[in-house]
Amino acid sequence: MDPENLPVINNYLDASDPLSSEARVSRMHFHDNQRKVDYVLAYHYRKRGAHPAHGSPGHSLAIVSNGETGKDPHAGGPGDIELGPLDALEEERKEQREEFEHNLMEAGLELEKDVESKSQGSVFVRIHAPWQVLTREAEFLKIKVPTKKMYEIKAEGSIAKKFNEFLQKLSSPLQPRVPEHSNTRMKNLSYPFSREKIYLYNIQDKDTFFDNATRSRIVHEILKRTACSRANNTMGINSLIANNIYEAAYPLHDGEYDSPGDDMNDRKLLYQEWARYGVFYKFQPIDLIRKYFGEKIGLYFAWLGLYTSFLIPSSVIGVIVFLYGCATIEEDIPSKEMCDRQNAFTMCPLCDKSCDYWNLSSACGTARASHLFDNPATVFFSIFMALWATMFLENWKRLQMRLGYFWDLTGIEEEEERAQEHSRPEYETKVREKLLKESDKTVVQKLETDRTESDDEDDEDKLGWKDRFPGYLMNFASILFMIALTFSIVFGVIVYRITTAAALSLNKATRSNVRVTVTATAVIINLVVILILDEIYGAVAKWLTKIEVPKTEQTFEERLILKAFLLKFVNAYSPIFYVAFFKGRFVGRPGSYVYVFDGYRMEECAPGGCLMELCIQLSIIMLGKQLIQNNIFEIGVPKLKKLFRKLKDETEPGETDSAHSKHPEQWDLDHSLEPYTGLTPEYMEMIIQFGFVTLFVASFPLAPVFALLNNVIEVRLDAKKFVTELRRPDAVRTKDIGIWFDILSGIGKFSVIINAFVIAVTSDFIPRLVYQYSYSHNGTLHGFINHTLSFFNVSQLKEGTQPENSHFDQEVQFCRFKDYREPPWAPNPYEFSKQYWSVLSARLAFVIIFQNLVMFLSVLVDWMIPDIPTDISDQIKKEKSLLVDFFLKEEHEKLKLMDDPAPRSQGGEDRSRQSRAASSALSGRSQAGRAVSPGSQHTNV
Amino acid sequence: MDPENLPVINNYLDASDPLSSEARVSRMHFHDNQRKVDYVLAYHYRKRGAHPAHGSPGHSLAIVSNGETGKDPHAGGPGDIELGPLDALEEERKEQREEFEHNLMEAGLELEKDVESKSQGSVFVRIHAPWQVLTREAEFLKIKVPTKKMYEIKAEGSIAKKFNEFLQKLSSPLQPRVPEHSNTRMKNLSYPFSREKIYLYNIQDKDTFFDNATRSRIVHEILKRTACSRANNTMGINSLIANNIYEAAYPLHDGEYDSPGDDMNDRKLLYQEWARYGVFYKFQPIDLIRKYFGEKIGLYFAWLGLYTSFLIPSSVIGVIVFLYGCATIEEDIPSKEMCDRQNAFTMCPLCDKSCDYWNLSSACGTARASHLFDNPATVFFSIFMALWATMFLENWKRLQMRLGYFWDLTGIEEEEERAQEHSRPEYETKVREKLLKESDKTVVQKLETDRTESDDEDDEDKLGWKDRFPGYLMNFASILFMIALTFSIVFGVIVYRITTAAALSLNKATRSNVRVTVTATAVIINLVVILILDEIYGAVAKWLTKIEVPKTEQTFEERLILKAFLLKFVNAYSPIFYVAFFKGRFVGRPGSYVYVFDGYRMEECAPGGCLMELCIQLSIIMLGKQLIQNNIFEIGVPKLKKLFRKLKDETEPGETDSAHSKHPEQWDLDHSLEPYTGLTPEYMEMIIQFGFVTLFVASFPLAPVFALLNNVIEVRLDAKKFVTELRRPDAVRTKDIGIWFDILSGIGKFSVIINAFVIAVTSDFIPRLVYQYSYSHNGTLHGFINHTLSFFNVSQLKEGTQPENSHFDQEVQFCRFKDYREPPWAPNPYEFSKQYWSVLSARLAFVIIFQNLVMFLSVLVDWMIPDIPTDISDQIKKEKSLLVDFFLKEEHEKLKLMDDPAPRSQGGEDRSRQSRAASSALSGRSQAGRAVSPGSQHTNV
Repeated sequence: MDPENLPVINNYLDASDPLSSEARVSRMHFHDNQRKVDYVLAYHYRKRGAHPAHGSPGHSLAIVSNGETGKDPHAGGPGDIELGPLDALEEERKEQREEFEHNLMEAGLELEKDVESKSQGSVFVRIHAPWQVLTREAEFLKIKVPTKKMYEIKAEGSIAKKFNEFLQKLSSPLQPRVPEHSNTRMKNLSYPFSREKIYLYNIQDKDTFFDNATRSRIVHEILKRTACSRANNTMGINSLIANNIYEAAYPLHDGEYDSPGDDMNDRKLLYQEWARYGVFYKFQPIDLIRKYFGEKIGLYFAWLGLYTSFLIPSSVIGVIVFLYGCATIEEDIPSKEMCDRQNAFTMCPLCDKSCDYWNLSSACGTARASHLFDNPATVFFSIFMALWATMFLENWKRLQMRLGYFWDLTGIEEEEERAQEHSRPEYETKVREKLLKESDKTVVQKLETDRTESDDEDDEDKLGWKDRFPGYLMNFASILFMIALTFSIVFGVIVYRITTAAALSLNKATRSNVRVTVTATAVIINLVVILILDEIYGAVAKWLTKIEVPKTEQTFEERLILKAFLLKFVNAYSPIFYVAFFKGRFVGRPGSYVYVFDGYRMEECAPGGCLMELCIQLSIIMLGKQLIQNNIFEIGVPKLKKLFRKLKDETEPGETDSAHSKHPEQWDLDHSLEPYTGLTPEYMEMIIQFGFVTLFVASFPLAPVFALLNNVIEVRLDAKKFVTELRRPDAVRTKDIGIWFDILSGIGKFSVIINAFVIAVTSDFIPRLVYQYSYSHNGTLHGFINHTLSFFNVSQLKEGTQPENSHFDQEVQFCRFKDYREPPWAPNPYEFSKQYWSVLSARLAFVIIFQNLVMFLSVLVDWMIPDIPTDISDQIKKEKSLLVDFFLKEEHEKLKLMDDPAPRSQGGEDRSRQSRAASSALSGRSQAGRAVSPGSQHTNV
Repeated sequence: MDPENLPVINNYLDASDPLSSEARVSRMHFHDNQRKVDYVLAYHYRKRGAHPAHGSPGHSLAIVSNGETGKDPHAGGPGDIELGPLDALEEERKEQREEFEHNLMEAGLELEKDVESKSQGSVFVRIHAPWQVLTREAEFLKIKVPTKKMYEIKAEGSIAKKFNEFLQKLSSPLQPRVPEHSNTRMKNLSYPFSREKIYLYNIQDKDTFFDNATRSRIVHEILKRTACSRANNTMGINSLIANNIYEAAYPLHDGEYDSPGDDMNDRKLLYQEWARYGVFYKFQPIDLIRKYFGEKIGLYFAWLGLYTSFLIPSSVIGVIVFLYGCATIEEDIPSKEMCDRQNAFTMCPLCDKSCDYWNLSSACGTARASHLFDNPATVFFSIFMALWATMFLENWKRLQMRLGYFWDLTGIEEEEERAQEHSRPEYETKVREKLLKESDKTVVQKLETDRTESDDEDDEDKLGWKDRFPGYLMNFASILFMIALTFSIVFGVIVYRITTAAALSLNKATRSNVRVTVTATAVIINLVVILILDEIYGAVAKWLTKIEVPKTEQTFEERLILKAFLLKFVNAYSPIFYVAFFKGRFVGRPGSYVYVFDGYRMEECAPGGCLMELCIQLSIIMLGKQLIQNNIFEIGVPKLKKLFRKLKDETEPGETDSAHSKHPEQWDLDHSLEPYTGLTPEYMEMIIQFGFVTLFVASFPLAPVFALLNNVIEVRLDAKKFVTELRRPDAVRTKDIGIWFDILSGIGKFSVIINAFVIAVTSDFIPRLVYQYSYSHNGTLHGFINHTLSFFNVSQLKEGTQPENSHFDQEVQFCRFKDYREPPWAPNPYEFSKQYWSVLSARLAFVIIFQNLVMFLSVLVDWMIPDIPTDISDQIKKEKSLLVDFFLKEEHEKLKLMDDPAPRSQGGEDRSRQSRAASSALSGRSQAGRAVSPGSQHTNV
């Protein structure tokens, strides 16, 4: 039964990959048509001499697979010398490659590559992992594989079952037609692969037992840890790529996605059922995505899918809230009062000199518009959205658990821990440099007393605080600078608005639509700046994180994300925060306005309130950002890049030979795709959008609708990118979405306080309430507008700020302005009035109540929804006991062959107890079975 | 090397238990003086006949140990019949006991008991676990045991090391003199016990390899899962105890704590170095506590110790804040103004008719006193305490991790899960009843159509929603009732205060110290009520949780804790909340007072502000609760119980024979102790105290000091209880303190908002600030008192409420009262003034800022302090790789004996990779080691 004695290469019928034998030969396999290519390393070589390679002339293959056709690179093959003098760097690289490839072969991998026949060109090293290597690594990596045992997933109650069936029938046109989706009733028991327990697994075909993603993952693991002593003893392929020794390393796609025939592969299936706009209405085939791309990308799409489906109810309610605003617009007393030309509220001029007094009824339009977003329904909507965010996060936790169960991810913490331990190449380089410096210093210690590094470092092989300090300082300073830059740009736009408004007011022709022009242009400037800075900040964050030299990939990613998030968040939201909370609050009052520069007054909000402007700002930035980023950055730029590279490839001679271009190998095709660079930009885009949906939802209830529309496209766009435009990413196992979850829940919490302030401070909700219940004579809002306007005695306007050539139709003694201040005839004129303070109290009280209520409700929701779905936790328990039972059965059959005369006297009860106890102490089982019999061997008194 | 072939009972020198051979014989061992008693089951028997037992007359022992001396209980020994007719219940119990004991023996345990020689009495079944059972169970339970390998714990840097050594020298008198404490530099590598890998462990003596706590834990595990088919197939000893078949089950203490000799055992050591008031200044020997009592109790004392030590800095700062108050009392302008007799503020009368006008300066004393607690320093103190709470919780997480590392608790989740799966006996009974009912119903289905239970239950072996509904309803209703009861008692005390104050005011003699009398008596009533209800609510919570019939012990405990916490929290804090936030806020104003009953005005706060009263209330309740609960409930009641039981024992004849009373066996001694009932009361007391320390710390900065003083005693009190007064508890493994942590962090969060409101609403901090910066003419507080007092025109007092026989020395036209209201001469007299609203705004703004700032700082602290200390996470990593190395070495030596010619060609690098990979796939190691050699056995192309 020892697996090692079985023949390794047997029939190579790839059951999951029903390509014709012909197609398989040319695409996915070694030259022998049997061994599958699991991974490809690409590098670019250049030679001076044009000698033919050291292989036999008839062969264009230099199969270096495991010591048979390949030669020992350390022997210094005489062929190398024949090749003529290469330049030193190329030679060095070549040697490093040879050593690395030799080490890979020593690790058991089989390699194949073409001979370097031309003066320069790309060489693809194809790697195949034989069964021994796969099993060994699967055991080390504790990859869970299905055992022979299948079991039924717990059936629901009869009613729930029927309902579920009905639901399934109803949604069947929405289901992608993917084979995996058919049998969700049964699940294979999984158990970490172990060569000792080979009889547990249902190994029909050793070539297909591990699927392609797992195979390439295993090879990638080996590549990551194989050292190359010549290249400064660096560990792994990542360092070699970083040092330009290899150009790229990638696993192969499963085939072409747009091949014309009937032959199907997972990639084609994904393309047809998932990565097309035509199937936008369908559910995502998450299991297939996970199978093809690995758990990390699978989780991203699962998350995106859940988020998108959660946007549906919030969109519906958002639209209802909006429609409620539309429907009640005629009944809104304050806007009616504003529009009523008989209420002649003579307003103070909006700018010095050139502006005239004006009648409030001229702002009727904005008042009516702002009612659409500033009505009591939005308060409930923002409470709803805060709870929605909590519900979403809770449901995500549950979905994550569910997927973790179905994907057999339970108990992979240790693996993650290991992943953390791989140091990044840059870190290793830095440590080496430091060690070099230290050793220098010990030699010339007296000469270099002014060095900053000191000797009392305990462990020299780490970067200490002192080594990192410059990086941290640089980071801190740069981030501060970037934030200051963002703020100053926002301020710049404000100044632009103020000055342009003033300039336009001078010109009579443009005066009528000053506000519209200025607002629109300013928002567009903001948008453009945001888009540009977004790209810059992304690059800056990457650069800053590199300066920091984090030790592992994971810390690198986390710090990069945090920095990029901070910068992009500030960038995207600072103009919005300005409009929401600062605009119009530092205006001063007639007679003592606040001036930015000499003669330029601080800008005010439109008469309808700042909420309207906030809404415009939000909608333009959100929509513009999504449209432009989707179209230009995600579709346009990659297309351009592709075009550019194609052009470049064509101009470079000798790169593509005719045979390849006619029947390009899969590795050629994949090489021409863009490399995969991680999920960070995709997540980041969604997180910023999540911010738009939650943070200011009180002022813009339509945000979820726009987000929903965007995401329906976004899912397919990302899918298309992954399936058609990127090289296949390495399958990465992970249990959760990591730091993104913390960021999401942080935004969720932050949104509570932001919404509280938007409702309390930006909207007119509280003043209306206060008026209605404290000041109104008949409990209605009649007279509210009058109540919110203070009087100003125009004779007290400062010299030179009065309107020139007033065309106002009546003599003005008092003009009105929007504020709660004492009238000119009070003992302390223009001081804040009692109303001001009572309204302020009400606003603040609302913030406290809203914040604490919503936080309490969120905690309640969090507490009420268990993180692990009950059925899943039941299933996990059931799986555990099933596993032990299955295990015992299999073991028992093995034991029958051995002589084991000990009586199993305790029967079923003892066994069930053991089942529980032994669920993971399985290895000690056979012995345990023998030893259970009580007191049969020892002496008694 | 097979451990099973070794002789089981060999030399019985218990190294850790250096009692004289004589003492050991009579105390801790079977009659053969060799086998240690690991567990004792006690039961009480009664016989009608007085025949001698069926043993031989010379022997008083009925050793039933494993089928040698004992007889088969199922054979129905003829001796039983000879005994004459027992009553049916006794007979039934006896049979159940016999079956259970038989099953225990089948599980491999060895039993010994005395013959039932008298007509009635207690019988102790002593249980010994032989080596086979211990090893089997240790493997099942995955008990980590030390391996042969020791390793040094990472040394700190030279400076840190020196500092640490200095610190250690300094604190050496504080260290308990316990052997374990000496070598903290070295740690044994631990690995779950496995009989296959017996060569890993350093087994010098099979009797002492597992310490006493582990041995008894193993026996307890077996007891818990052994079934008894006669007793309705109940599982485990707990059901049997619940059904009165056994009286008690307990492991033995290690000996006597106060034996006079030099012989030392762990219990005595604990008593001398820990469980005495004399050593109150010493650190706790946590490792020894854990060794003796198990991890759960160890964690409690570690938590209590950390909490107590964290109270030291907060006490110091609390005292400083208090002293600052004392020092600045002379400079406090408002209290000086109040005491200044020249500022003749004529105050409105405090009650109708019988009270006179009074001068504010008469309240000088309280004003000065309240400055002690109401000064700016308390604001900073309450911010400090909020952060302190976060710091404490973070540090607890770290300490927990650290202890988890040293106690080898990493990776025991599965074990915990298993513990959850044990159903409680009550739950099983209920399920059985339900099943019975169901089967009844299917028979007489037509007859019982009015039953509430329905048939469409999916799984009959569970309690569904419908079965639980009555319990939940009862719970909900009872909790609501209890809370309503608490509130009504609080209201009752208020009424008492109002009426007594009114009554006393009528009497001239008592009038002078009405307030003091009333406040003092009311607080004492509150205290008494709290103490009584505390006990009642504890019982009620237990009863309610029983009604709920939770499935497992863990859910039972959690629900009990939640309920008890809710009830006790409401009970302890509702009078305090009343004083802090409600008292004096519904008084009304002169001329339109609010009346509770006819003629009784709502009570007001003292002129110094409610903070002073809050402070009195807090200090009396906190101190009284601690003193009385400590002295009466924790010291007095147990003493009384003991006395009572002693008296009862003495009056019952034939119970104690002379031999036993002279040389009582350890099981006799332990049987006379109180049974251990869990840590819930201890935790609960501390959590309520934590509430006093954090929730209202703004009003009572001395709370930490009192808590500290209490806890220094509490530690030793609890220690004494565990060491001397309780039976030895079962050692329970657990990783954390469970739900208590959530409750603590909940209190911490709640304290932020409570403190914000105390400072903003209860104290005078905000009004002073507002006055100083907005109304004061010169930026000082001069005139503040005048500012806070409104005017009232005495002619507007309602008819019949004017003071009778006013003795005030001058004619009163306006009296003053503390509120911000418009003066009588304003256009809208007695309405809230602008000051009122501006102060209110400031108060609310303060709440918002304080809450969000402190919450943000807490999150920051939480984020900055990693949950796992860096050195521990390093150590865990190091331990893992060390373990694999050690493992490989041991394995290698084994492998040398076998023929394994495969060359290990990849050397150290491959090995280090394996080390990482294999850290817990250890069982597959030997095979892995053989298979690593690459490509040596298979064919290549």
